[in-house]
Amino acid sequence: MRLALGISYRGSAYHGWQSQAGLRTVQDELERALAIFAAQPVRTVCSGRTDTGVHAVNQVVHLDTGLQRADFSWVRGTNTFLPADIAVQWCQPVQDDFHARYLARSRRYAYLLREAAVRPALEQGLVGWTFRPLNEANMRSAAACLIGEHDFSAFRAAECQALSPVKFMHRIGMRRHGAYWRFDFEASAFLHHMVRNLMGCLVAVGSGVRPADWLAEVLASRSRQKAAPTFAADGLYFLGPRYDAHLELPTHTAACDWLPVADSDPLR
Amino acid sequence: MRLALGISYRGSAYHGWQSQAGLRTVQDELERALAIFAAQPVRTVCSGRTDTGVHAVNQVVHLDTGLQRADFSWVRGTNTFLPADIAVQWCQPVQDDFHARYLARSRRYAYLLREAAVRPALEQGLVGWTFRPLNEANMRSAAACLIGEHDFSAFRAAECQALSPVKFMHRIGMRRHGAYWRFDFEASAFLHHMVRNLMGCLVAVGSGVRPADWLAEVLASRSRQKAAPTFAADGLYFLGPRYDAHLELPTHTAACDWLPVADSDPLR
Repeated sequence: MRLALGISYRGSAYHGWQSQAGLRTVQDELERALAIFAAQPVRTVCSGRTDTGVHAVNQVVHLDTGLQRADFSWVRGTNTFLPADIAVQWCQPVQDDFHARYLARSRRYAYLLREAAVRPALEQGLVGWTFRPLNEANMRSAAACLIGEHDFSAFRAAECQALSPVKFMHRIGMRRHGAYWRFDFEASAFLHHMVRNLMGCLVAVGSGVRPADWLAEVLASRSRQKAAPTFAADGLYFLGPRYDAHLELPTHTAACDWLPVADSDPLR
Repeated sequence: MRLALGISYRGSAYHGWQSQAGLRTVQDELERALAIFAAQPVRTVCSGRTDTGVHAVNQVVHLDTGLQRADFSWVRGTNTFLPADIAVQWCQPVQDDFHARYLARSRRYAYLLREAAVRPALEQGLVGWTFRPLNEANMRSAAACLIGEHDFSAFRAAECQALSPVKFMHRIGMRRHGAYWRFDFEASAFLHHMVRNLMGCLVAVGSGVRPADWLAEVLASRSRQKAAPTFAADGLYFLGPRYDAHLELPTHTAACDWLPVADSDPLR
């Protein structure tokens, strides 16, 4: 039997999602807790690997098991063995050919950014920070060139394992609430550090360090050397994958409502 | 020269505001950082002591110093020596007879509560949690008895050092956004654990464990034994004091906009 699970976590204490020898990762914690609950080893496949320090609102994984339990027993039982900063939010049986990664049509990320003269404290680890005022019109103008299918090599970390740097960017949203900005990114898939590199460039444009048309030059160059420095992981949230609607998997968890700025497009 | 400073902090790692031998407190960290910046010992007086694990959006302190520096230099300089979860947000010169505690007309607290079948993860340490659905009408009906001047002994911790249990409750606000509730409390002052004890009682009423008119009985009893258990510190935020308007001290910091649910009364 194959199950899909939705997971929320605060990434601050973890070396990202994927298991790595000698490092603490979210996958290790989840599989350890699942194994205790199921009293047998459990392997998971995730919809999108998150980097060190990146948070997740609705990370979707699938697993195979012979254990028959009510859906909510998987949620509650596994959570008993998880640390406080990771929790399964939902569990649903799926067809045997469901695959959390291969069937994801797109992935969504949000970036929360504090624009203020003073650094964050209360919300540290949960937002990026810039002390320079941002110009929204310039950022929107710059971001337009990213929409559609492009080779995103300029925003790709050297360690990236993706087979191709060509991805389809469906949407970039921006919204401000007081001192906080929320940037929404939806793409077919993301390269390693891609959102954080895009954020570095958008902030460079927004704060006037670079002109709006510079971003198109960076994109066309396909060269990481052209782009701005990688922005902090602190403000980055993996909102989750999108699957075909007929699969009827949850696209939201409660933590969606916890982000201090709502998505700029309420239909999303 | 007397200065007023506004401080934001995440309380999770601290044994509350007040210095205590052998324990890590926010006051100790702040005074240590101020002493490095000023190159001399600095003592602070706060507007309201917060308990272990309680966060602050705009804790106001005053201090006396002979050091002449631009206001923003105090902010930036002190923040250099503070841990990431504490930051000075503003600094303003005040009259020599200003007193952060004695001149505070009232204090405001917000409590953030997650109402969901599953526990928090991403936002752990920053919200309380109840898995039982809450009835807002019943909570409002119950809370009405608390408004005005009352002996709040029923909601007072044994360790409370306040001279009198009689306080004036100006307002209790409630607002829901998705899975999250925000409760706002404004009173002349608060007893030790008072908001957390009130939250325990409001949740007991909201979830149907107790009838709405039970809260008036608890209040009248003046007995801590009658009240519900103390609610978790995780969701409690000290929004800050109110002073006479002519003092022109900031009542907000950027972090006000970071709370995921806005105050139910936008005029506040």
